[in-house]
Amino acid sequence: MIAKKNMNKRLTIGMLIFNHVTALDFFGPYEVFSRLPKAKVLIIGAELTPIRSETGVRILPDISFKDAPQLDLIFVPGGSGVNQILLDLKFLHFIRTQSKSAKYFASVCTGALILGACGLLTGYKATTHWASMDFLKELGAIPAKERFVIDRNRFTGGGVTAGIDLALRIVRELYGSEEAQTIQLMLGYDPMPEFKNAGSVDTADSKIIQRVRKEIKPMIEERTKAVLTAKEALKSLKSIPPKDLSH
Amino acid sequence: MIAKKNMNKRLTIGMLIFNHVTALDFFGPYEVFSRLPKAKVLIIGAELTPIRSETGVRILPDISFKDAPQLDLIFVPGGSGVNQILLDLKFLHFIRTQSKSAKYFASVCTGALILGACGLLTGYKATTHWASMDFLKELGAIPAKERFVIDRNRFTGGGVTAGIDLALRIVRELYGSEEAQTIQLMLGYDPMPEFKNAGSVDTADSKIIQRVRKEIKPMIEERTKAVLTAKEALKSLKSIPPKDLSH
Repeated sequence: MIAKKNMNKRLTIGMLIFNHVTALDFFGPYEVFSRLPKAKVLIIGAELTPIRSETGVRILPDISFKDAPQLDLIFVPGGSGVNQILLDLKFLHFIRTQSKSAKYFASVCTGALILGACGLLTGYKATTHWASMDFLKELGAIPAKERFVIDRNRFTGGGVTAGIDLALRIVRELYGSEEAQTIQLMLGYDPMPEFKNAGSVDTADSKIIQRVRKEIKPMIEERTKAVLTAKEALKSLKSIPPKDLSH
Repeated sequence: MIAKKNMNKRLTIGMLIFNHVTALDFFGPYEVFSRLPKAKVLIIGAELTPIRSETGVRILPDISFKDAPQLDLIFVPGGSGVNQILLDLKFLHFIRTQSKSAKYFASVCTGALILGACGLLTGYKATTHWASMDFLKELGAIPAKERFVIDRNRFTGGGVTAGIDLALRIVRELYGSEEAQTIQLMLGYDPMPEFKNAGSVDTADSKIIQRVRKEIKPMIEERTKAVLTAKEALKSLKSIPPKDLSH
């Protein structure tokens, strides 16, 4: 717990957004962070033009890369668009440049692959969406099949909805338990999932798992290539020295 | 279960959006519905201009009221902006006009008050965000303190995050269990809330409840006036005959 020293600080939380992001990867944590009285949340796109999510909704960034201030916390969501971002030098450069002075790094779902491609998970325990778990190791991380993982100042969440759980934990870590409980109550977050076993690949019906794997096969094949390219590029990067929570 | 007769139908789901909507009220259900292979999801605003959520994010509607087709399912989210919508005759008129031929009506959080103001919950069991529960009765509904409530073809969810649970149930009802499980697995919806008791007003710490009530007091006072105005207007409306699930 590092809450005490942040409680009166106004952290700047930069939430990156890009085409074919999974909207809920972004909006779970957004709804949590944007309710913090003592944080400034910025939605950051490469440009100011609207982005379109994986399933079609258009969202407007608040600010573009060139005008973004130094961020305290960098948040990266996932989605099918991660395949393009892994090869997008401008996007990766923005995160790497920001990372020199940022204090905390967070991702949800396959956003972890983007952090990995920036060298930010090398030697760190991390998690991602179950269907992309194998890619973490390729990008230097130590995969952990958990709802979310905290290793020093890296916070990574599992698939999509894990972002809500992760964001509440981040608020608890950075601002304390009362802030996190207040937001959880405002959001009525007392979940009642429709199926007890369907939300995790460890417990879901095998027929359902097979169906999902089949549906996402082309995306995963494309991702395999993108990750290999990002892995090669990563070798030539100097690894970014770990920052711990005392920063 | 009415899944069988919908499984091969392409339902048009209209998701309404307005200024000061709670983003997550909208995006939980959006992420679920927009993954249905056999549904067309439209994000509908009064105009095509971007709307701004309660905490600031700007979202673009797909279509405006004047160009919207007949909807099969009308979805209404909540948020502080409900106070304005309760008095917005154009908005209420759009829902009432659509409701003559729509098959299903759904809301999350205080979106129920909007359905109520359209006469669509008169005599129906319904739920809403815990802090607005008292308003349901004023607008003709029978309040039920549950995560979500289904009464004939009206589906109402509790506060914010209840939308994810509700949307998965709607998918199960309309398209069957396999579709709902597939989406739950894709979204990794195996929740792990940070605090066991903080998500419900029935179990939360009384100090936290008091803090939230204090913070939202001005909004609730404004809402009280808006609901009374909407209640008066409702008296002069002919009640809309209930449609049941056989439609």
